[in-house]
Amino acid sequence: MTRLFNDPATFTEDMLEGFLDANSRYVVGVPGGVVRAVSTPEGKATVVVGGGSGHYPAFCGVVGRGFADGAVVGNIFTSPSADDAASVARAVDNGGGVLLTTGNYAGDVMNFGLAVQKLRSEGIDARYLAVTDDIASAPLDQIEKRRGIAGDFTVFRCASAAADSGYSMDDVERIGTAANDATRTLGVAFDGCTMPGAGEPLFSVEKGTMGLGLGIHGEPGVSSHEMPSAAELADLLVDGVLVEKPAGSSDRIAVILNGLGRTKYEELFVVWQTVARRLREAGYTVVDPEVGELVTSLDMAGCSLTIMWLDDELERFWTAPADTPAYRKGAVAANAGERRSASAAVAAGADTLPESDEASRECARFVLKSIDALAERMVSAEDELGRIDAVAGDGDHGRGMVKGTAAARSAARDAADRQGGTGSVLAAAGSAWAAKAGGTSGVLWGAALTAIGNRLGNNGTPGDTDVAEALRAGYTALTSLGGASLGDKTMLDALDPFVGAVERSVAAGDGWRSAWSDAVAVAQKAAVGTADLRPKVGRARPLAERSVGTPDAGAVSMAMSVAAVAELFTNQGISS
Amino acid sequence: MTRLFNDPATFTEDMLEGFLDANSRYVVGVPGGVVRAVSTPEGKATVVVGGGSGHYPAFCGVVGRGFADGAVVGNIFTSPSADDAASVARAVDNGGGVLLTTGNYAGDVMNFGLAVQKLRSEGIDARYLAVTDDIASAPLDQIEKRRGIAGDFTVFRCASAAADSGYSMDDVERIGTAANDATRTLGVAFDGCTMPGAGEPLFSVEKGTMGLGLGIHGEPGVSSHEMPSAAELADLLVDGVLVEKPAGSSDRIAVILNGLGRTKYEELFVVWQTVARRLREAGYTVVDPEVGELVTSLDMAGCSLTIMWLDDELERFWTAPADTPAYRKGAVAANAGERRSASAAVAAGADTLPESDEASRECARFVLKSIDALAERMVSAEDELGRIDAVAGDGDHGRGMVKGTAAARSAARDAADRQGGTGSVLAAAGSAWAAKAGGTSGVLWGAALTAIGNRLGNNGTPGDTDVAEALRAGYTALTSLGGASLGDKTMLDALDPFVGAVERSVAAGDGWRSAWSDAVAVAQKAAVGTADLRPKVGRARPLAERSVGTPDAGAVSMAMSVAAVAELFTNQGISS
Repeated sequence: MTRLFNDPATFTEDMLEGFLDANSRYVVGVPGGVVRAVSTPEGKATVVVGGGSGHYPAFCGVVGRGFADGAVVGNIFTSPSADDAASVARAVDNGGGVLLTTGNYAGDVMNFGLAVQKLRSEGIDARYLAVTDDIASAPLDQIEKRRGIAGDFTVFRCASAAADSGYSMDDVERIGTAANDATRTLGVAFDGCTMPGAGEPLFSVEKGTMGLGLGIHGEPGVSSHEMPSAAELADLLVDGVLVEKPAGSSDRIAVILNGLGRTKYEELFVVWQTVARRLREAGYTVVDPEVGELVTSLDMAGCSLTIMWLDDELERFWTAPADTPAYRKGAVAANAGERRSASAAVAAGADTLPESDEASRECARFVLKSIDALAERMVSAEDELGRIDAVAGDGDHGRGMVKGTAAARSAARDAADRQGGTGSVLAAAGSAWAAKAGGTSGVLWGAALTAIGNRLGNNGTPGDTDVAEALRAGYTALTSLGGASLGDKTMLDALDPFVGAVERSVAAGDGWRSAWSDAVAVAQKAAVGTADLRPKVGRARPLAERSVGTPDAGAVSMAMSVAAVAELFTNQGISS
Repeated sequence: MTRLFNDPATFTEDMLEGFLDANSRYVVGVPGGVVRAVSTPEGKATVVVGGGSGHYPAFCGVVGRGFADGAVVGNIFTSPSADDAASVARAVDNGGGVLLTTGNYAGDVMNFGLAVQKLRSEGIDARYLAVTDDIASAPLDQIEKRRGIAGDFTVFRCASAAADSGYSMDDVERIGTAANDATRTLGVAFDGCTMPGAGEPLFSVEKGTMGLGLGIHGEPGVSSHEMPSAAELADLLVDGVLVEKPAGSSDRIAVILNGLGRTKYEELFVVWQTVARRLREAGYTVVDPEVGELVTSLDMAGCSLTIMWLDDELERFWTAPADTPAYRKGAVAANAGERRSASAAVAAGADTLPESDEASRECARFVLKSIDALAERMVSAEDELGRIDAVAGDGDHGRGMVKGTAAARSAARDAADRQGGTGSVLAAAGSAWAAKAGGTSGVLWGAALTAIGNRLGNNGTPGDTDVAEALRAGYTALTSLGGASLGDKTMLDALDPFVGAVERSVAAGDGWRSAWSDAVAVAQKAAVGTADLRPKVGRARPLAERSVGTPDAGAVSMAMSVAAVAELFTNQGISS
């Protein structure tokens, strides 16, 4: 919803004042809208775009070199008046004429149409063009009834760039018409937007569904669908637009995947992955695609796919330089330099492992089994860890542990196959864990395993003291890297009592394996006990009340890991 | 919420693949992230930025000329691994060294710190810088504990532009450090974002409140506040940031008003209106402000204000050209041309009114009273009309009628003062109504009043037939412009039976005033009766079920207007 405003009645005026201030290097205000900060060269054909506001960057955001000469700015979702349109047109005209262009909406058609009459009566060569790209709003044989949505962008852009290239008014109008004839858009909506000061959204979409062709102001669409996956949505949009390929058009296309405001860049890129593949498979070459927010509707949730089939002229204007508040292209010097291939990555050299003896390799095989057990435990615990983590963190701990242990298992197996000793297998596991898991816990686990491996080395069977000291080395590596203290609600809260318990048992003369098994309960108790410790500091923890009494996911997974290895001892009948 | 994904577990990989495809003219992928599509010139210092994803355009969106050489891309809100960071750094280094820089988060500090160690051990001159701009995350005397938020943008930008300008690694590090020392950010959050596939937001903010300093992943903030107005928010942010002005800094500042994802451009511009004024009043010169989405958190609602106090070097790099997927600057040729003043608008010439006689001027005074009555009725009816319109439209009809009638009243009074006759006063009212109301109804009312005025002229007292014919002329102007048919649920549904009723009464020999009063009931009945007419076409009407049985706001206001004038007759004792 729209949350920030002063007086809803002056929202547009306030918005415009802020916009003009922030972009004074590009634009100045005139009655009815905005125009470029620099004067129109004498005799240049000009383009004035417009419509209601609420669609930023459309329309005032694209006033500048290579794009519009001016924009008429109406109230939110409301056509500006004929006087407004005429005023902006007069401000940009310098004898070369002006093309006024908007999406095809009743209010805009009327007001801009009247403005054109008025301007022509004053001797200004004014023309009007309504964009009709929205496939869903009328059948193809009534294309003149279709609305203008994100296709406004391709049409405004080509007509404007043509005007800036020195084209005459007739040719600017011809290019605008050609761009409109070649442009098709299909959109979907997931939720409506809220007007400034309104208590309820302008319209809504039933939860879990999607409106196909639903207009950007809530105009009726074609059909309602269950919410699809990103790939399914891409298929739906690509199929829907490609079926309208204009006769005789080329296989070079400009494409916009447009977000309406609340559907964000990351989601659009996921959809684009499939859109791009589908278009390639259909034999198309995509020229300078745009994936982002170009024609929005406040914070409406949804997106649309626009294709403009290119000819040589349209491609020239689509790719021309532009310099406006919200759309810039062809910046700096030409993008010169040696283009690198995607395979330019520097691979880490395949390293050779240190020598090892058979005793250490046998122990390494047991380490490998332990890591196997740990990886399997994490797969079954993924959801539970996610739930625990979601209370105080971002809910990805289960996923991170699965990724980390899977990578560790694979790397450990590879090191064991290459005759690595205990130290090499642990170091390989640690390195892979840190590399693949990402996040904080991955790098800490990685550091701990690597330190343990370094202490155990690659020769001989580790004795009780070796194991205790190795665990302590791992503990030290983890704490010096992580900087957390006991009681900060981290994995340390489970690791610390565990390592202490093993050290005490070993000092008392018990074998390391039984000491380990005995220490499991200590770690488990401590993990649950993080609930009673003071709040964890320095990590994402939204609201104080949410973390009180909550065990830390990292402590829980640490205790689980220790337990998984201890179970392995029991299952294998190893007790000392 | 994040709605579009395939498998939540591969969201980042899918996003990255789509991003790379859409921006292949700028970037290529390498293990761990993305790098510029062109190779690093030999010996150039480089900058690699990074952190978890979910913050687009940060961080992969700013890889390119004038900005980063590479970006390490972690999972959503999760630090990438040390191997990822080292891999991207190796891919960009060409002997000049590499500055790795992230926001100051535990995972990033650890992973990038390890990467730097690794790179240095390989002979690469690697450095690390953590951005600490977030005022709310720790007191000033513990600035090293502060998080990095939107200030990442100014710091990454200046360090990167310095590297591109030919600065050595030492100087790039110096510039990055200086930029960080000079940058402060204060942010607010209104609502949390939802991770791909998650059923609940990562965190939430109580409705009607705002979290001051709430971190972009939900980290605890400073305090909770009632939702302020845009101006109050601007004051809070400006005061909060300015109080931290670094000692000895200049009065030239770079400023970012950053939207987190769901707080849209229009709202940000409204806030900027006050921010800009406050900064000017405090004696600052704002250099190339950015108002928009630069560092987001999926679709989180909120915004932040960042100020970087400039010295000559920082200003040079802040304003340097850039060409990246999501941030471009200094496009095309220099913005040459004659700069126009804000007063460049072309004013319509003050026209002289046609001659009128006293009879017509007397009638004009009555017209003026009628328009007065109409304007007052609309003020009292604004809310009701808004409510009716919100059911099937965008809820602004009441506002539009108030604006339109107020403008009509003022223009009519002016024309009457200037001795205008009936025709001039009506034409002035119509023209002003169309100009100020905007939207569809404004231009239609304007056309109708103008046509009525033209028919009545400026001489003599209009007779019964004149009035009936004038109303029909207004009707014709309205229908020919609007294109609606009876039953389309527009103002026509009330106007048509009214005009017909007046015509019939006049034909039957009744005076036009009494005919008018009698016709009011017909119009009112018809307005309510729009409920039973078939759905209106070609206008915003979200969901079929919402408009069934709903009167049209335009028809209701038309009936109200007719009634307001009829009441005037009664009040003045005029009945024939």
